Amino acid sequence: MKYSQLFSKTLKQVPHDGESINAKLLVQAGFVRQEMAGVYSWLPLGLRVLRKIEQIVREEMDAVGGQELLMPMLHPKANWVQTGGWDSIDVLFKLNSRTGNEYALGQSEEEIVTPLVMSRVQSYKNLPVQVYQIHWKFRDELRAKSGVMRGREFLMKDMYSFHADEKDFLRFYKLVKEAYLNIYKRIGLTAKVTEASGGSFSKKISYEFMVLTDAGEDDILYCEKCDFCVNVEIAKVNVGDTCERCGRGELKQARASEVGNVFDLGQKYPKDFDLTFVDEKGKKHHPWMGCYGIGISRAVGVIVEASHDDRGMIWPASVAPMDVHLISLRAKDSKTQGEIDQAAQEIYDGLLNMGIEVLWDDRADATPGQKFADADLIGIPLRMVISEKTLKEKSVEWKERASEKAQLIKREDVLKKIRSV
Amino acid sequence: MKYSQLFSKTLKQVPHDGESINAKLLVQAGFVRQEMAGVYSWLPLGLRVLRKIEQIVREEMDAVGGQELLMPMLHPKANWVQTGGWDSIDVLFKLNSRTGNEYALGQSEEEIVTPLVMSRVQSYKNLPVQVYQIHWKFRDELRAKSGVMRGREFLMKDMYSFHADEKDFLRFYKLVKEAYLNIYKRIGLTAKVTEASGGSFSKKISYEFMVLTDAGEDDILYCEKCDFCVNVEIAKVNVGDTCERCGRGELKQARASEVGNVFDLGQKYPKDFDLTFVDEKGKKHHPWMGCYGIGISRAVGVIVEASHDDRGMIWPASVAPMDVHLISLRAKDSKTQGEIDQAAQEIYDGLLNMGIEVLWDDRADATPGQKFADADLIGIPLRMVISEKTLKEKSVEWKERASEKAQLIKREDVLKKIRSV
Repeated sequence: MKYSQLFSKTLKQVPHDGESINAKLLVQAGFVRQEMAGVYSWLPLGLRVLRKIEQIVREEMDAVGGQELLMPMLHPKANWVQTGGWDSIDVLFKLNSRTGNEYALGQSEEEIVTPLVMSRVQSYKNLPVQVYQIHWKFRDELRAKSGVMRGREFLMKDMYSFHADEKDFLRFYKLVKEAYLNIYKRIGLTAKVTEASGGSFSKKISYEFMVLTDAGEDDILYCEKCDFCVNVEIAKVNVGDTCERCGRGELKQARASEVGNVFDLGQKYPKDFDLTFVDEKGKKHHPWMGCYGIGISRAVGVIVEASHDDRGMIWPASVAPMDVHLISLRAKDSKTQGEIDQAAQEIYDGLLNMGIEVLWDDRADATPGQKFADADLIGIPLRMVISEKTLKEKSVEWKERASEKAQLIKREDVLKKIRSV
Repeated sequence: MKYSQLFSKTLKQVPHDGESINAKLLVQAGFVRQEMAGVYSWLPLGLRVLRKIEQIVREEMDAVGGQELLMPMLHPKANWVQTGGWDSIDVLFKLNSRTGNEYALGQSEEEIVTPLVMSRVQSYKNLPVQVYQIHWKFRDELRAKSGVMRGREFLMKDMYSFHADEKDFLRFYKLVKEAYLNIYKRIGLTAKVTEASGGSFSKKISYEFMVLTDAGEDDILYCEKCDFCVNVEIAKVNVGDTCERCGRGELKQARASEVGNVFDLGQKYPKDFDLTFVDEKGKKHHPWMGCYGIGISRAVGVIVEASHDDRGMIWPASVAPMDVHLISLRAKDSKTQGEIDQAAQEIYDGLLNMGIEVLWDDRADATPGQKFADADLIGIPLRMVISEKTLKEKSVEWKERASEKAQLIKREDVLKKIRSV
């Protein structure tokens, strides 16, 4: 895409959102627009990041046997009354209709997925079942904060699994844990898994996936030598203690952001709806449920918090809005300008033909300083520049966003080199 | 995907939704589940159809220069008050928050897109702009009906264009009209475009894209000899009249379903928000706006209404949930069963390797009659059967859903033949 045609360009003014780096950078770079506190529009570049994370999550959920579906956002009141959530969940948005019916806006989907899945499950032979969706959710937060990390409207992947017994849930949880760690690795985050918190019969978070970042809302204690990690809220250990798991490391405290969680739901929801399956002997049981969440829009914010410098964002290649940021600079005379434009066009076409996504800053009226600053702000992993100087050398300037070093690459070698990256 | 592993299988009972064929077939085939009147869950096969239509729409919108973004569903009350919609639009869902703020749930997006786009437009040089989203919307319908064709929660593509003047809007509208006709053709529908209804300064539907179907909610008059078509509501002609456009055909009346529309919005919304751009001479103007909708979830219902028989749905290949429905039948002895299963596995793997999507009915406990009935109900365009009979002939039975004829194809020729389809 040519930058001159891109709908949402970078903003000259730094937005007044002082409280979070992710909102400031995402708004300034034209990735999102804040419509009101905690509610954002996702502009073309931001939407591309969202979709890339979504696709990675989808692949990993499919790989553990998850089947994708899409449940509604408008929920019947009756389902929430049945589980007690209608009166107990303070972030639940409620609304009335002209017909007199009352609805809830989905903030989690147990109330829908339990009757839905159990309408297909009669016998133990139909279990286990694991279904997931990637869909928007709503929370009536008293205070929306941390930019896209904690919105009133947000995109989540939520998977639900149904098992004949707790043992089978634990088997499946282990698969999901590995899939989650794969996901974080693929989107450029290093996540730690906190210890289980409560017993498996309580509806408490069993496991949290945490990324170390100062923008986080949680404090964790973790061991530097092994993978032990616990939320301070429930920790029975202290900073400086020797790690009980490995016996070697010392426990450190850090600010962290939750990027995923697993709930061992036990039999609560099937019991609330009195939905059962029959075992080999024809005896009825309530299935055991697990719930597995990843905040997709939240992850965008966490990635920005974890990967930026004072000039802008630094996207991991896997989730970058584009692969290459191509810049053609102004020349002194129109003949040289024509040559620069033609060279840029050839690189652009060549990359597109290879299936590589390119943002080409083709603006005729922007200075080199503006173009470089915008490229740094937007944070596409690889920058290529064509200027009078590189033209003379029959080259392009090749620079990775995460590095300070630039190098000249012969134009004829660019396509070959990018194939090897 | 193996049918034995598919989460949502066909239902034995015909659902009690007598009023619409699409709901009956989609529910019975396990494509959707009704959660309440006008609100559906999209199960794996239904979601695949939704995504395929979505992708065709996306390609055609990109081709006319549309840029995809995603706007929120939770809207600030202030924007709707500004345009008068808060008090005048009866299908607008409204809700309160704990913070005392009031919100609307998006049923159309002019209230958000106008300030959003105009925050990026200062000068005539920034125009035209055309942005679109594929997103869920909500309408507080007094009565939800016609299955997925008229829901309280539904998936739409809505594009908005901004122009320096009406002339430029009309130029762009013509491009969109062609793109729309391409879309309907690609998803297997034949659409007629109705005449403009009101003047371009009124906020009336200018054009409607209609598909002839008895399940429709509109009556149209159309000419059989040319493309003249008008909604009866605003028609100044009658059934039996000679067509004024071609002077040859006679006007017929038919029931039709709206599958898309174009609104010439004029300058209403930019005026409501007092948002302007400057022309070459520095003079301020309100831009001219167009709005272009296609109901994606609605289209699924219309396709089913337009393409089914008394045994089930008949999907056009472009939007079918899968390309091939493979059936392996039971054999009398276990040795032959092993050979059937192996032959089916080879076809299955061969098709998957070619990137062809296959639903393999691998159930050991289903009769041939059940398997054939389910294949007809689900409506995948191409069915392949492997049985004792075809095994002897080293063949598969090849049958298109839309045809009554089956033929035997040598197993070694299957992959070659499908490549040529």
